[in-house]
Amino acid sequence: MFNERMKRLGESRSVIRELFEYGKALAAERGKDKVFDFSIGNPNIPAPEEVNESIVKNLGDPTVHGYTSAQGDEGVRKKLAAYFSQKMGGPLPADRMYLTAGAAAALTATFSALAGAGDEIVVSAPFFPEYAVFSETAGCKLVAVPSDANFEPDIEAIGRALNSRTAAVIVNSPNNPAGNVYSENTVRALCRLVEKRSRETGRRIFIVSDEPYREITYGTEAVSPVKFYDDTVVCYSFSKTLSLAGERIGFAAVSGRAENGDELFAAICGAGRALGYVCAPSVFQRVVADCVGKTADIAVYRHNRDLLYGIVSRLGFECVKPEGAFYLFVKCPIEPDAFFEICKDEGVLVVPSESFGIAGYVRLAYCVDTDTIVRSEPYFERVAQRCKAYRERAEK
Amino acid sequence: MFNERMKRLGESRSVIRELFEYGKALAAERGKDKVFDFSIGNPNIPAPEEVNESIVKNLGDPTVHGYTSAQGDEGVRKKLAAYFSQKMGGPLPADRMYLTAGAAAALTATFSALAGAGDEIVVSAPFFPEYAVFSETAGCKLVAVPSDANFEPDIEAIGRALNSRTAAVIVNSPNNPAGNVYSENTVRALCRLVEKRSRETGRRIFIVSDEPYREITYGTEAVSPVKFYDDTVVCYSFSKTLSLAGERIGFAAVSGRAENGDELFAAICGAGRALGYVCAPSVFQRVVADCVGKTADIAVYRHNRDLLYGIVSRLGFECVKPEGAFYLFVKCPIEPDAFFEICKDEGVLVVPSESFGIAGYVRLAYCVDTDTIVRSEPYFERVAQRCKAYRERAEK
Repeated sequence: MFNERMKRLGESRSVIRELFEYGKALAAERGKDKVFDFSIGNPNIPAPEEVNESIVKNLGDPTVHGYTSAQGDEGVRKKLAAYFSQKMGGPLPADRMYLTAGAAAALTATFSALAGAGDEIVVSAPFFPEYAVFSETAGCKLVAVPSDANFEPDIEAIGRALNSRTAAVIVNSPNNPAGNVYSENTVRALCRLVEKRSRETGRRIFIVSDEPYREITYGTEAVSPVKFYDDTVVCYSFSKTLSLAGERIGFAAVSGRAENGDELFAAICGAGRALGYVCAPSVFQRVVADCVGKTADIAVYRHNRDLLYGIVSRLGFECVKPEGAFYLFVKCPIEPDAFFEICKDEGVLVVPSESFGIAGYVRLAYCVDTDTIVRSEPYFERVAQRCKAYRERAEK
Repeated sequence: MFNERMKRLGESRSVIRELFEYGKALAAERGKDKVFDFSIGNPNIPAPEEVNESIVKNLGDPTVHGYTSAQGDEGVRKKLAAYFSQKMGGPLPADRMYLTAGAAAALTATFSALAGAGDEIVVSAPFFPEYAVFSETAGCKLVAVPSDANFEPDIEAIGRALNSRTAAVIVNSPNNPAGNVYSENTVRALCRLVEKRSRETGRRIFIVSDEPYREITYGTEAVSPVKFYDDTVVCYSFSKTLSLAGERIGFAAVSGRAENGDELFAAICGAGRALGYVCAPSVFQRVVADCVGKTADIAVYRHNRDLLYGIVSRLGFECVKPEGAFYLFVKCPIEPDAFFEICKDEGVLVVPSESFGIAGYVRLAYCVDTDTIVRSEPYFERVAQRCKAYRERAEK
């Protein structure tokens, strides 16, 4: 009875959900100030003032809440297309831009347009877990290729994974969960590789560039593959840039240089229709056009990163210092399950890395109140002490 | 190259889209006042004041734009559940209510949860064309059963269509495109039938009740099957009630009495996740909770209906007087293609009925400025004259 896949997806509603419930119970038992939830990537910085100003301004138009065309309001698309073409360094024409209910919708529609049964989509691990879910929805298989020790893509290994079944390669920089930002050299090398393997396999392999964190960087700027590779689809969301995660607004944009790009764009729009999307939320279409180029106060994330990275590295946890996004990807100093349980027990809520396609790490989202990070230090200390004791017991 | 189904869906972007483009060109050629667009069901009445008041009020909370839980904010669900349980006359508990990006998302997730390959979903024709698209997304087949001359469901014929492959029966009253509202007797008879056939086939057949027009009625009140049938899922949207079509806010709610209802609810949430929905737009979750029970100024639709129905019936067009929604379903007085072309040529834009699963009709959406209807009368007159001439020529 009922669709088994959907039941499984609904019932396994992710570790994060369970942690959330656990955290609530723990807060009730020990007090709210004893729980440190680093599990959810929900921006804690408010949207910039311009967002609410734009909303109020647009409410003056009585047609603002009506349907737009399925691909989104034309004026909005023109404005976004001009800005992002310049910003990302590749042609993203308005008539190949499909406004979506966030990056998740953009990815699902793009995967469903590009791939089908028997196809494969290749990604460097660790990766955002929903890539696997959306690939399955498209009827294809996600193939994960382990990255190197710094979470940089292993170009040679990716090359070996590309074959005539490959529909697309996902590029996600700044990366969720690892927080690294690919250098221009890395992006160029990836593009060259996909170009070469497309020629060799006789199938145009697309790059799907998932860039929701592109504005959240702390040194290295994000480089989009659309700059170097013609057959690219950019999936973008304003969730992080403008702290609008709940409003669901983003886009999928096909490069103006893509082979059969108009056909692909039609397929993306068709997939959106098949998946039940009608149009992206209408007020927020106008809001993102009004606020293009603006960001929430991202400096807070840098401060949080420095604080949290300082704490965990001082306590001897192994962790690559992240250059973007708002995640710290920390190596488990002891057996992962035991580490996870110690963290939970101390009220430090983190996400184990298995769902990201790699074992032995935990992800900490530092898009939280800075005060939470400051107050968490003694709890991290206790976690470190208990890990040390655990290791000593194990060594006996 | 690319997914064929999605390409087809994207390229055949519906007659309505083509009419829209045709109308724009015609307006440029003859003047805007010579084009009468009755093709789109986009509410023309502004949202009630309370909507914008609620938006502005909620902007005061800096967390308003963040993620909610996947099924929607708990407080919002509780408020909606209490209201709609009472209003629809069946138990719709908050923990079985999944807030969605409109009814399209609710339907796609529900179909995908209830059905799979080899399954069938049964509907009375004429029907909303996207039911076929969403069924195909769920991997199953939409089976259309012709209604009677008044567009009432043919209970016996539906009974014959139900078998062990049937996952669900769609009930859509008030009906798009026919505008009829099922009487309580009809709804009861349908429920009894599905109950009986479930027993006979050995499979619990669900009723999916698609009720986006439930508040837009002109006499007969809409009756929900959730009142009489346990295994019911209600799909609802605030698009029409509150004139929020572009904002994408609605829900899927599983009856509190449904067999394995918790499992089905999990499958609906899982399907939402698989389809790329993350949460329903967050500000509008709060807005619909604040505005529950309110409606846009629906009296305008009744006035429009009376005017437009008056015009077409005076001119001799055959049409059942609609009791709900904002559509007139008019019988073609001559060969349908010829009728459609004459209408277009006179600047009267209507939707041919083939996509609704029935031939020989056109749909007129009267959610337009009243003035448009008034000014359209002479154009309808010319359509009528040209139809008469067409018939006379044909009879020679």
